[in-house]
Amino acid sequence: MFTVTTFGESHGPAMGCVVDGCPPGLALAESDIQADLERRRPGKSRHTTPRNEPDQVRILSGVFEGQTTGTPIGLLIENKDQRSRDYSKIRDKFRPGHADYTYQQKYGIRDYRGGGRSSARETTMRVAAGAIARKYLRTRLGVEIHGYLAQLGPIELAAHDLAAVEHNPFFCADPDRLPELEDFMDELREQGDSIGAKIAVLASGVPPGLGEPVFDKLEADLARGLMSINAVKGVELGAGFAAVRQRGSEHRDELSPDGFNKNDAGGTLGGISSGQDILASIALKPTSSISAPGHTIDRDGKATEIVTTGRHDPCVGLRATPIAESMVALVLIDHFLRHRAQNADVERSTPVVPAANRD
Amino acid sequence: MFTVTTFGESHGPAMGCVVDGCPPGLALAESDIQADLERRRPGKSRHTTPRNEPDQVRILSGVFEGQTTGTPIGLLIENKDQRSRDYSKIRDKFRPGHADYTYQQKYGIRDYRGGGRSSARETTMRVAAGAIARKYLRTRLGVEIHGYLAQLGPIELAAHDLAAVEHNPFFCADPDRLPELEDFMDELREQGDSIGAKIAVLASGVPPGLGEPVFDKLEADLARGLMSINAVKGVELGAGFAAVRQRGSEHRDELSPDGFNKNDAGGTLGGISSGQDILASIALKPTSSISAPGHTIDRDGKATEIVTTGRHDPCVGLRATPIAESMVALVLIDHFLRHRAQNADVERSTPVVPAANRD
Amino acid sequence: MFTVTTFGESHGPAMGCVVDGCPPGLALAESDIQADLERRRPGKSRHTTPRNEPDQVRILSGVFEGQTTGTPIGLLIENKDQRSRDYSKIRDKFRPGHADYTYQQKYGIRDYRGGGRSSARETTMRVAAGAIARKYLRTRLGVEIHGYLAQLGPIELAAHDLAAVEHNPFFCADPDRLPELEDFMDELREQGDSIGAKIAVLASGVPPGLGEPVFDKLEADLARGLMSINAVKGVELGAGFAAVRQRGSEHRDELSPDGFNKNDAGGTLGGISSGQDILASIALKPTSSISAPGHTIDRDGKATEIVTTGRHDPCVGLRATPIAESMVALVLIDHFLRHRAQNADVERSTPVVPAANRD
Amino acid sequence: MFTVTTFGESHGPAMGCVVDGCPPGLALAESDIQADLERRRPGKSRHTTPRNEPDQVRILSGVFEGQTTGTPIGLLIENKDQRSRDYSKIRDKFRPGHADYTYQQKYGIRDYRGGGRSSARETTMRVAAGAIARKYLRTRLGVEIHGYLAQLGPIELAAHDLAAVEHNPFFCADPDRLPELEDFMDELREQGDSIGAKIAVLASGVPPGLGEPVFDKLEADLARGLMSINAVKGVELGAGFAAVRQRGSEHRDELSPDGFNKNDAGGTLGGISSGQDILASIALKPTSSISAPGHTIDRDGKATEIVTTGRHDPCVGLRATPIAESMVALVLIDHFLRHRAQNADVERSTPVVPAANRD
Repeated sequence: MFTVTTFGESHGPAMGCVVDGCPPGLALAESDIQADLERRRPGKSRHTTPRNEPDQVRILSGVFEGQTTGTPIGLLIENKDQRSRDYSKIRDKFRPGHADYTYQQKYGIRDYRGGGRSSARETTMRVAAGAIARKYLRTRLGVEIHGYLAQLGPIELAAHDLAAVEHNPFFCADPDRLPELEDFMDELREQGDSIGAKIAVLASGVPPGLGEPVFDKLEADLARGLMSINAVKGVELGAGFAAVRQRGSEHRDELSPDGFNKNDAGGTLGGISSGQDILASIALKPTSSISAPGHTIDRDGKATEIVTTGRHDPCVGLRATPIAESMVALVLIDHFLRHRAQNADVERSTPVVPAANRD
Repeated sequence: MFTVTTFGESHGPAMGCVVDGCPPGLALAESDIQADLERRRPGKSRHTTPRNEPDQVRILSGVFEGQTTGTPIGLLIENKDQRSRDYSKIRDKFRPGHADYTYQQKYGIRDYRGGGRSSARETTMRVAAGAIARKYLRTRLGVEIHGYLAQLGPIELAAHDLAAVEHNPFFCADPDRLPELEDFMDELREQGDSIGAKIAVLASGVPPGLGEPVFDKLEADLARGLMSINAVKGVELGAGFAAVRQRGSEHRDELSPDGFNKNDAGGTLGGISSGQDILASIALKPTSSISAPGHTIDRDGKATEIVTTGRHDPCVGLRATPIAESMVALVLIDHFLRHRAQNADVERSTPVVPAANRD
Repeated sequence: MFTVTTFGESHGPAMGCVVDGCPPGLALAESDIQADLERRRPGKSRHTTPRNEPDQVRILSGVFEGQTTGTPIGLLIENKDQRSRDYSKIRDKFRPGHADYTYQQKYGIRDYRGGGRSSARETTMRVAAGAIARKYLRTRLGVEIHGYLAQLGPIELAAHDLAAVEHNPFFCADPDRLPELEDFMDELREQGDSIGAKIAVLASGVPPGLGEPVFDKLEADLARGLMSINAVKGVELGAGFAAVRQRGSEHRDELSPDGFNKNDAGGTLGGISSGQDILASIALKPTSSISAPGHTIDRDGKATEIVTTGRHDPCVGLRATPIAESMVALVLIDHFLRHRAQNADVERSTPVVPAANRD
Repeated sequence: MFTVTTFGESHGPAMGCVVDGCPPGLALAESDIQADLERRRPGKSRHTTPRNEPDQVRILSGVFEGQTTGTPIGLLIENKDQRSRDYSKIRDKFRPGHADYTYQQKYGIRDYRGGGRSSARETTMRVAAGAIARKYLRTRLGVEIHGYLAQLGPIELAAHDLAAVEHNPFFCADPDRLPELEDFMDELREQGDSIGAKIAVLASGVPPGLGEPVFDKLEADLARGLMSINAVKGVELGAGFAAVRQRGSEHRDELSPDGFNKNDAGGTLGGISSGQDILASIALKPTSSISAPGHTIDRDGKATEIVTTGRHDPCVGLRATPIAESMVALVLIDHFLRHRAQNADVERSTPVVPAANRD
């Protein structure tokens, strides 16, 4: 019901998207979207790619006198810092661990400049569209969505202080560990290598009832949305893979009028939100854009070597937090609208149980 | 393009589905489907629910003179062993860890008999539809899909012997460990408790080019399909969460004319299949249907206790292997047809690189 | 949001469908559906095909204790009167004006028995699903949907008496003309020929606001739904093709607090319902199943002749009224749910203008 | 499979769209699209609105080195001639026969400037996207799509000379009648009134097999696409409403190895293209933007009068031909891709019968 259609290549003239199905009457300005774009924007610290994009979004339609009208919202960001350079090295070779080879096999043609459509630059539009969804969810339903860095390579991080997330370049909620993260990244950058990361997203205030029973379970659509982010290799809800070792007597969250006793389920039961916090985690692989040479083939299938140069993030996970939050927001608003379509006139007799306390 | 629409409750008259978009000319008999249903069927060993369903499928349409016609395939399985019993205990109370509470909040009404639509019985139709997809993939494209039990509670299992999977009730590819599994399950059943599990699915022979670049990445749709299976709390592709600790120099799979050097990606790059084996893993939670009493509320929101009786699987993971295989098959055939729609006339000049050897 | 997925061939074991997205809490019994099926059923007068099908529908899921649960509703009708006969005449030849040739070219295989999937028997499921939609629309929104025969060959009919429609085999609202219709059909049957017809459908009580601005206009989805009925070759809304000759000063329906002054628009403006009656008309071609021999080709492409025997309707339009009503109902409920999804919290300040009086 | 997502309001900064699913490797330049936009562009003769828009399209993505890449094609046209004027007259009143009232009731808010989203300006993007579809259909499949004016008010026109269509402002294929059309329009403009029109679209070279058997019949999707064009009130295929008076012996198109004997079906049988020419007609209502005052209500529901001033087309049908052609192209390419998805490996044994000769 809330659909996002995007376009744009890394080195094309612009990135854009169309947001369809947004409820009318939502106060919306470019600054609402810009704020989230800033959080994702590269070039803000030495730990991310030095590509410097202002990422200034324009609303081209669907907003009138400061409010959404219910018609499609067109968004556009012009690409500015497309450094013109020699792409001949990657034009005829496939970077290992990249989409170069698969795009070539699928389409027989590819825009190799900066990764083209496979570039992480595509995620600007997820963030832009997600900002609209977040504003609706927050102002109309009281849903708050917060992501944070849960692990950087071997460094596992706590989530003590969600307020700290916005004040460091790592989206880290464990601020005492910041020096450790800084050192790790500095060393990594010197080595010309990259590292994986784990991001968690928490959505509170989600009403019970969102999601569908079978194929369109809320957790299924969350998994799809999150796994569709570049570099994601795993998705967990609640206890996630830790549930493999759990017993039923340990895993199940008990209910009482005062609330759930804990949150191992991660906010859904049988595909439908329970009123618990939605808690999702994702694993991001280390980017393959590293300076160490790698074995590969060229377009004729012959063996060769390649070195990836250019401007790259040594840890794509560092900028993934606002993207993951956006995907959660998009899935939630879509299911909220779907739920309302079918069930707006349901009279509920059972009181809503509060979410479990976090910690 | 290959769509599956299912219906049916655990204690209703029948389970059914409609498979739309199957290519015509595929030889198909009920026995093709029955074979996979047998693998999922309960009551085959003492480790699964004693509910005994013959699960005899009928093809009601879409097949003529032994071949698919391209029109919708209607499938039906009548429910036989719906033990009539007293449901009053769960009619007015919500079992913790179950969908009882969320269905009630969503719909204001629920079929509480045996879990209704939230019952794992729903997965019969995934297996039935998946069997059609598998047959097409195998006979037309040479794709083979094999799942196995990768972990049962604390017991991690190897995948030495995929041929053994069909000859034990655990779908275990590590047959030396079978006595250990038997003992673990026997003890668990005595305790009236349940346990989580991890299942892996391997699809070989998948051609490069399946999947879409952004929201409909192959891994995204695999994650959605797998996370939509009852009790699944996590999905991984390739290295999965292990990628969090990896460096880029370690994670990337290098290419040569002789093949990929390994398979940490799990078969996709940038959302599109690479010709590597698809390797997906899922975490299944321990079922909440255990004999230990649990705190909960009733329909009026008052505190109460509940004991789940009836026939249940102590490890839903034990029967999940054919279901997970089916979901992988359904996602692959859908993306194969989508790929063919857009790219049937692409002329590829780059040779296909062989998959990495498994070990 | 309200989706109907059907399956079944004319001479297969059963026809069936799955209705997804029905709001919960709707009182629903098989008799609700059966009533509309009876109206469509063949064999009720000498003017329709003598095939005699009891068309007894079974609800297989989605209804519990007499109410819809919000989960998929499975419906099944077993085929009974599949007269076993010699199909060799049409197995290898294509009946002109039939789907035989196009199915063969599309799929390379076809179920030629009784037309297979292309048989009008497929419409049983539209009527069954439509009955659910109608009941919701009527009981929750006060929407009434009435169809009638507007023209039979050269005989143009008025709509003086909608109450008469249910009391004659022609769905004729101009009861004085019944003898004329009877005579026309008797003569036609003697000649072994068939005739076209025009059906109109009127939906009153439709709230303003249903429909989308551009591609999913309410009139566009009505046109799609109605044109998808077998044998339909034209669809009109309101003035329809008569609008070609109209001037703007004549066509536009003026508004006042007392209501619209007339209804040339047919109930929508700019893709969205206006609160006027929805008024749609369809043209049905004369069936090609006539006894006069026709030129055609066989499966090898050689010239041949064919005579269509068997049991057929000389005017498929005579049984099309309940089908057309059902399609209108399905489109309306879908757009009602979509509208509610996006706009449930819109506060309207402008009063709703009454529909124009019919005359 | 070939999807078009549009956005933009008449007086907003830009119109845009995203075309998804276009096959890769199609040579495409902005000039390919511009040519069709020119045909739709206003201000080319005195018979259309004097609004003067250059309608210069930019391709923002999906094309690399002159070829489509298979990724989304973003298109943008900036609005230039948004004459700033006083909208207070229509801000608080609903023009009869316009979408003003229905948008207000649906969304509770509307962009009243120039009709906002309901403006015919929206159709620029249909034409832009349609140009891509047409180029693919023409260059890869040999499909040619030609529309023409079939009737203007009372003046019925022949289709003798399709080549003449591009050389007059009426898209008229009956060039001897041009003076009559000029006179009619001049008189109408003096009267400040508007008139309806009928447009026909002919698509030749369509291969047999496109379309689906039941709800997604080719004719159903054509009807939807055509009825979704602003001001369309009726759609016909082949004989259309004339079929109501036909007998089966008259309507059916007979086949022979030399071809179909005529084309009353309009190119489809049972929802699937037959290889005949697709022949569709649409009725366009006279625009309600006329200078004669009309009764209406204001936003508070009170009775009032309104005069529509501004720049308007006295016959929206005059510019509808390229729009209708585009919708036919979009439906055909979508069904071509869908057909290929399911049936790419069908081996046909029956030769394709030629289309009937046009006369």
